[in-house]
Amino acid sequence: MATVAIIAGSDSDLPVAEKAFLVLEDHGISYDFVVLSAHRDPDRLDDYVRNADCSLFITIAGLSAALPGVVAARTDKPVIGVPVAGTLMGIDALLSIAQMPAGVPVACVGIGNGANAAYLAVRILALARKKE
Amino acid sequence: MATVAIIAGSDSDLPVAEKAFLVLEDHGISYDFVVLSAHRDPDRLDDYVRNADCSLFITIAGLSAALPGVVAARTDKPVIGVPVAGTLMGIDALLSIAQMPAGVPVACVGIGNGANAAYLAVRILALARKKE
Amino acid sequence: MATVAIIAGSDSDLPVAEKAFLVLEDHGISYDFVVLSAHRDPDRLDDYVRNADCSLFITIAGLSAALPGVVAARTDKPVIGVPVAGTLMGIDALLSIAQMPAGVPVACVGIGNGANAAYLAVRILALARKKE
Amino acid sequence: MATVAIIAGSDSDLPVAEKAFLVLEDHGISYDFVVLSAHRDPDRLDDYVRNADCSLFITIAGLSAALPGVVAARTDKPVIGVPVAGTLMGIDALLSIAQMPAGVPVACVGIGNGANAAYLAVRILALARKKE
Amino acid sequence: MATVAIIAGSDSDLPVAEKAFLVLEDHGISYDFVVLSAHRDPDRLDDYVRNADCSLFITIAGLSAALPGVVAARTDKPVIGVPVAGTLMGIDALLSIAQMPAGVPVACVGIGNGANAAYLAVRILALARKKE
Amino acid sequence: MATVAIIAGSDSDLPVAEKAFLVLEDHGISYDFVVLSAHRDPDRLDDYVRNADCSLFITIAGLSAALPGVVAARTDKPVIGVPVAGTLMGIDALLSIAQMPAGVPVACVGIGNGANAAYLAVRILALARKKE
Amino acid sequence: MATVAIIAGSDSDLPVAEKAFLVLEDHGISYDFVVLSAHRDPDRLDDYVRNADCSLFITIAGLSAALPGVVAARTDKPVIGVPVAGTLMGIDALLSIAQMPAGVPVACVGIGNGANAAYLAVRILALARKKE
Amino acid sequence: MATVAIIAGSDSDLPVAEKAFLVLEDHGISYDFVVLSAHRDPDRLDDYVRNADCSLFITIAGLSAALPGVVAARTDKPVIGVPVAGTLMGIDALLSIAQMPAGVPVACVGIGNGANAAYLAVRILALARKKE
Repeated sequence: MATVAIIAGSDSDLPVAEKAFLVLEDHGISYDFVVLSAHRDPDRLDDYVRNADCSLFITIAGLSAALPGVVAARTDKPVIGVPVAGTLMGIDALLSIAQMPAGVPVACVGIGNGANAAYLAVRILALARKKE
Repeated sequence: MATVAIIAGSDSDLPVAEKAFLVLEDHGISYDFVVLSAHRDPDRLDDYVRNADCSLFITIAGLSAALPGVVAARTDKPVIGVPVAGTLMGIDALLSIAQMPAGVPVACVGIGNGANAAYLAVRILALARKKE
Repeated sequence: MATVAIIAGSDSDLPVAEKAFLVLEDHGISYDFVVLSAHRDPDRLDDYVRNADCSLFITIAGLSAALPGVVAARTDKPVIGVPVAGTLMGIDALLSIAQMPAGVPVACVGIGNGANAAYLAVRILALARKKE
Repeated sequence: MATVAIIAGSDSDLPVAEKAFLVLEDHGISYDFVVLSAHRDPDRLDDYVRNADCSLFITIAGLSAALPGVVAARTDKPVIGVPVAGTLMGIDALLSIAQMPAGVPVACVGIGNGANAAYLAVRILALARKKE
Repeated sequence: MATVAIIAGSDSDLPVAEKAFLVLEDHGISYDFVVLSAHRDPDRLDDYVRNADCSLFITIAGLSAALPGVVAARTDKPVIGVPVAGTLMGIDALLSIAQMPAGVPVACVGIGNGANAAYLAVRILALARKKE
Repeated sequence: MATVAIIAGSDSDLPVAEKAFLVLEDHGISYDFVVLSAHRDPDRLDDYVRNADCSLFITIAGLSAALPGVVAARTDKPVIGVPVAGTLMGIDALLSIAQMPAGVPVACVGIGNGANAAYLAVRILALARKKE
Repeated sequence: MATVAIIAGSDSDLPVAEKAFLVLEDHGISYDFVVLSAHRDPDRLDDYVRNADCSLFITIAGLSAALPGVVAARTDKPVIGVPVAGTLMGIDALLSIAQMPAGVPVACVGIGNGANAAYLAVRILALARKKE
Repeated sequence: MATVAIIAGSDSDLPVAEKAFLVLEDHGISYDFVVLSAHRDPDRLDDYVRNADCSLFITIAGLSAALPGVVAARTDKPVIGVPVAGTLMGIDALLSIAQMPAGVPVACVGIGNGANAAYLAVRILALARKKE
């Protein structure tokens, strides 16, 4: 399977995901991309996360943005969250993603910043490779 | 089982839950109370929601406050969400609970306002009783 | 009379109301729609609310957004409030609708999210039907 | 009757109201004070406003703070609104009071600033007296 | 001289001022209109305010929006302030106008709401006329 | 006269001013300190600013915080502004001081950060000395 | 050297750092802790980051919170940032840490949430170990 | 070398920089302009700041906006910071620039207000000239 699993909460998050695609491709890192909502597809998301054979997750969501936290609750792998701007400029998604309770960490990057999610993945994966 | 299932995301939400207890007791409505985090206890929460024989849910959470949305994603019953104040006065939890995507509704009440969650439950249940 | 009474505070809220119309029609739920401002038509609003033979109210308002609370103060039926975005992206209306005092509950949904107001109504009405 | 009618939405607003009392007393202006919630006492509030023989209203409210707007909707007299700090430092009440729709004006003063409500009343009443 | 003196802090505030013009004209109230910045024309503003033979002031300003407070500091007449939206949607101007220190009151209306400034003036002037 | 003129808008701003005193004293820079409100003492403030024989101004104010801008409008010397926290944590004062219109600059430092106002003064004065 | 380098911007951030210490110790992960300000100790910080033989950095800072970004600019290793609450509840630090420009990623966790910084480090290091 | 060194964090900040160019040219003040990111070009920025033979710095940055603080940490000259609007209207950059820790001052001006950065520079340089 791919090294990075990218999950977007909605089709409309695709432009943000594409920024991550570009960076990962530049670094020769394979990725899988699915659109699965934490709120509308909870069971399919659960299955996907538990069976994903990736090294880490990039999750992209707007509004309530529960996706990153829900993924982090179902895996022990690193989870990166990208807030997407909507009615409130993304401040709602940013707070939902950053303000996780202790014990279930999400690595939040900037609003709409799919590129930095990928750059962060590159750094984490480089660390893993260095250890090999 | 009880008519209302009250779920708090953390032990520290108890004072908000107690405001709901009082109002429900005043109206002679039975309730069940559990502490289950959407992020730390995802499987137990999933089981609880799918097996709950209640009429509606009151969910209480702070910070990222994914609990109300996660419950609403796993039931067709009405879900009421109460944001709890933390580092950011509850504005993070308020936005997480109110800004749900179309299709998965949560009925958000005021920050720390466990009483209004119960008063809203009373109105919804009265409607159901009237129909009997 | 219709099952759901939808009240918008202004003609300009119609696009938000139409999202609710679509969902209710999909579920075969009848509705009545009026434009009545809590501030400009207080007496007509009062009459409408007291005489409405509906099961619940969906109220839609921007800016100060007193409409949902004013309706909730004059009925014992469930009241759902939809904040509408204006100069401040709807944060003013969201706070006005969510932050009701204890005893007079309003079920707040997301900014501009007329669909979720209707989906929440569907869940509440299903509960009532199940009890029949 | 008194020259100024002061209405607070809740007993807990009394400390803010007292700042207004002091300033009005210093200027020899008579006032009447009642606690009437726009949400919990809508009919008594309606009666009070319609029958008040005052020159202007000072209204004091926190949270959703519908009181000033509801009073302004039922009188042609000047209405001054004072937001009161609660869970969100009063930003909710400030926006509710300031962001009134065109046609139903409320004169908003600072958060918790009962004194300025009274000083504004003094200026308005002085204008009226000057005309005599 | 005119009954109402309308001062805008900048030429770009004219659209907001025009909403006030319309309402005042509808009510047959005379007005004078000048553009004077509290920051760029302090002396001319000072002269204008001290010599104005009006009954009250409507002041319109964006950004730091010191104009309403500066006028209120130089007159005993009622001063109405209208915040204008700029880079920060008008939240900066709203806070600058509403959060005046005790003793120097400004009657703040909604962001861009020139109409309500005029409607508030109408109510205040009606009170004065009633006393005649 | 002193090199730096420090003006606070209110007696309650003294703790913030004292942080500036300490830094200036450490650097052997003389200062004059007065409490003059832009809103309550406009004429005395005007006189003070026009007659001050200082090199620059440090101005300290909370709430609407018009003081820094009003001083900057009446002098060609550099004006530093320090926002002071009140009901809204100082966000109102910060925006009032930072968001000045083009042509009348104020150098805004952090909320309550009297020390940085002084450190900025030290840098500006060092530049002047270097030129001697 | 230690596996994780923890850098706090100020002595006052120690309570947040201690939450990270506990979690790392629980997982048997070695760490080094220093207090180095991006603004007050730029050269020593630069030296420390360039010479650190760690696998990743946890950086803790309040107010402007440039520390995480400055570290991320000087290393290719993963950098986790923890915002610390000050005058503005940590919203300033949260935005400074999350809103990094594309190319220089920081993994932001919740305000004051030193524990989640460590839990995120645990996940990243586990990934590296798995690859061994 | 030029009197004022203007540093923008990104090419996209050029429109804000150009407002500063105009004002400085009007006042006959020479300036040097470079685009150097605190995050992407830390070493080149460091070299530039340490070797700059200017009297003061104007720094322009959006998002996390570490540039002004990083420059202030590496020079004893006055540093002016201009926040640039991005996804969050510039509120992120404004807080990053204004909320500097004690000891490393930045003179923050309004969002996008390149003109005021230059006008502030004019005042500071005039002070230096007066001393000659």
